[in-house]
Amino acid sequence: MKIRVAIAGYGNLGRGVEAAVTKAEDMELVALFTRRDPKSIVTRTDIPVYHMDEAEAHKDEIDVLVLCGGSANDLPTQTPAMAKYFNVIDSFDTHARIPEHFANVDKVCRENGTVGIISVGWDPGMFSLNRLMGQAILPDGHDYTFWGKGVSQGHSDAIRRIDGVVDARQYTIPVEEALTAVRNGENPELTTRQKHTRECFVVAEEGADKAAITEAIVTMPNYFADYDTTVHFISKEELDRDHAGIPHGGRVFRTGVTGFEGENKHVIEYSLKLDSNPEFTSSVLTAYARAAYRMAQKNDCGCKTVFDVAPALIHPASAEELRKNLL
Amino acid sequence: MKIRVAIAGYGNLGRGVEAAVTKAEDMELVALFTRRDPKSIVTRTDIPVYHMDEAEAHKDEIDVLVLCGGSANDLPTQTPAMAKYFNVIDSFDTHARIPEHFANVDKVCRENGTVGIISVGWDPGMFSLNRLMGQAILPDGHDYTFWGKGVSQGHSDAIRRIDGVVDARQYTIPVEEALTAVRNGENPELTTRQKHTRECFVVAEEGADKAAITEAIVTMPNYFADYDTTVHFISKEELDRDHAGIPHGGRVFRTGVTGFEGENKHVIEYSLKLDSNPEFTSSVLTAYARAAYRMAQKNDCGCKTVFDVAPALIHPASAEELRKNLL
Repeated sequence: MKIRVAIAGYGNLGRGVEAAVTKAEDMELVALFTRRDPKSIVTRTDIPVYHMDEAEAHKDEIDVLVLCGGSANDLPTQTPAMAKYFNVIDSFDTHARIPEHFANVDKVCRENGTVGIISVGWDPGMFSLNRLMGQAILPDGHDYTFWGKGVSQGHSDAIRRIDGVVDARQYTIPVEEALTAVRNGENPELTTRQKHTRECFVVAEEGADKAAITEAIVTMPNYFADYDTTVHFISKEELDRDHAGIPHGGRVFRTGVTGFEGENKHVIEYSLKLDSNPEFTSSVLTAYARAAYRMAQKNDCGCKTVFDVAPALIHPASAEELRKNLL
Repeated sequence: MKIRVAIAGYGNLGRGVEAAVTKAEDMELVALFTRRDPKSIVTRTDIPVYHMDEAEAHKDEIDVLVLCGGSANDLPTQTPAMAKYFNVIDSFDTHARIPEHFANVDKVCRENGTVGIISVGWDPGMFSLNRLMGQAILPDGHDYTFWGKGVSQGHSDAIRRIDGVVDARQYTIPVEEALTAVRNGENPELTTRQKHTRECFVVAEEGADKAAITEAIVTMPNYFADYDTTVHFISKEELDRDHAGIPHGGRVFRTGVTGFEGENKHVIEYSLKLDSNPEFTSSVLTAYARAAYRMAQKNDCGCKTVFDVAPALIHPASAEELRKNLL
């Protein structure tokens, strides 16, 4: 019997989960929930679409619900609400609010005997896991996280809000010299500016003051002021042709020393190069949805994160096969 | 109260665990067991040394025993024997015999209510974990494992057995073109020869036939015949001066595609660059010793591998701290 998966929300992430589940032989999609008019949704696969308000009625048909909404407005309420009926999983990524979200989901899960796994993806998610394991293995050391090259949706949006801007795409780029210094085990102390640069592709209104737009971008507090930022003005056609993708990625390093004199250096580097940020996140969500189901099957309940999930639980093969083929 | 750790075997690995435990604030070393005369052992720290035969008498003083013997002759018997009295952990690395070793340890652990974690280190260990997670996240993809640049003890030993050879050191080196092709998501089919080269530094007896030694090396079945191998003859002084370290490392890749048309490529790369192969393995063992203790505290028992251990269990911080600081 396959694991019956449902999706809540049909944006980039929801579509990514739909694609990922079709590649998982042990899973099947049984429902899509939306807050829009279900009739207005055209799905890629043959999957029943229901309004979010009808979710409870399908509680016995679903093994795990993958929440694909946004961290700002959707997940803080949706994940706990749905944990009442379902094993749930989300990609909540507002780092500062994770403890609060965890507590909210945990309470509902424990009251209802469900499993919730939150903040699953690559950061938070795979990057977090590598930070944890790096620290545990090399306690005498340093952590570094670099992002990019990749599109930052938040920074792109911030540019779009400037007067005279029609559209924009912002890339976060790690500084090569900083990567090299870390990789060489030099343990550099790096400022924000020394770690990443920002590159912006901007479509301006006809006749707009480009110098003023550039100034508004590079001096923008929080978003750009602390970085070396370059701004390129291009046409809408160029933006659509050359910058339509949503690539991202990054690297987590742990560098540290061992031996009584700290005489031996070690470098652990975990790197991701992703053509599609949302589809990779969806793929991680789908793998951990399998774990949520399996943990619930063992009568576990409560809120979990990637830190609490034994890796074998995310792989479809049996424990015997994993030991034989992958250990 | 600290986790009371004991070590069995005082070679490179045992000394590495001794050093690693001194860096773990939540652990203390309480015993070292040896098959040699305990009086002959000079430890680096102030740790009581006992003969291996006395181990049972100390069962109530030890929370977890780290077995630091060899995979060929020591661990297949020692780990199950010691699992009768202790929670145990080892770095058993004969991949083909892991299922058998697992079964032997599991049986004793279950009969005695102990936890055993086997095959902990980097390969098997961290590399295995990355193979598993890569497959789970990107099921439509390819795995690649590269080793080096690093010293292969087995290959160095094989050279030393050749007539006329005084000493030798062999480095396994990944082929840069192969790494680049994998990193670019080209999914190359790679032969043994295309993945790694082998470089040998050999000290020959005076008057030895160097051409014959070279021929014996490069044509040696299993060890060298399938590789492009280079041989350098150097003096014993040069070998001791320039090749005394035991560096190693390598990379595990998972490359794969997502999307309904497989239109988006992704590359996951996990890389290790280690000055000391045994000390890094010891550091992984020490982190997972913490997990063995914690699993036993929760009344878990039986044999485990890194696949079965929730990552939070290897880090000294509390679950709350981990979520707050590392997620």
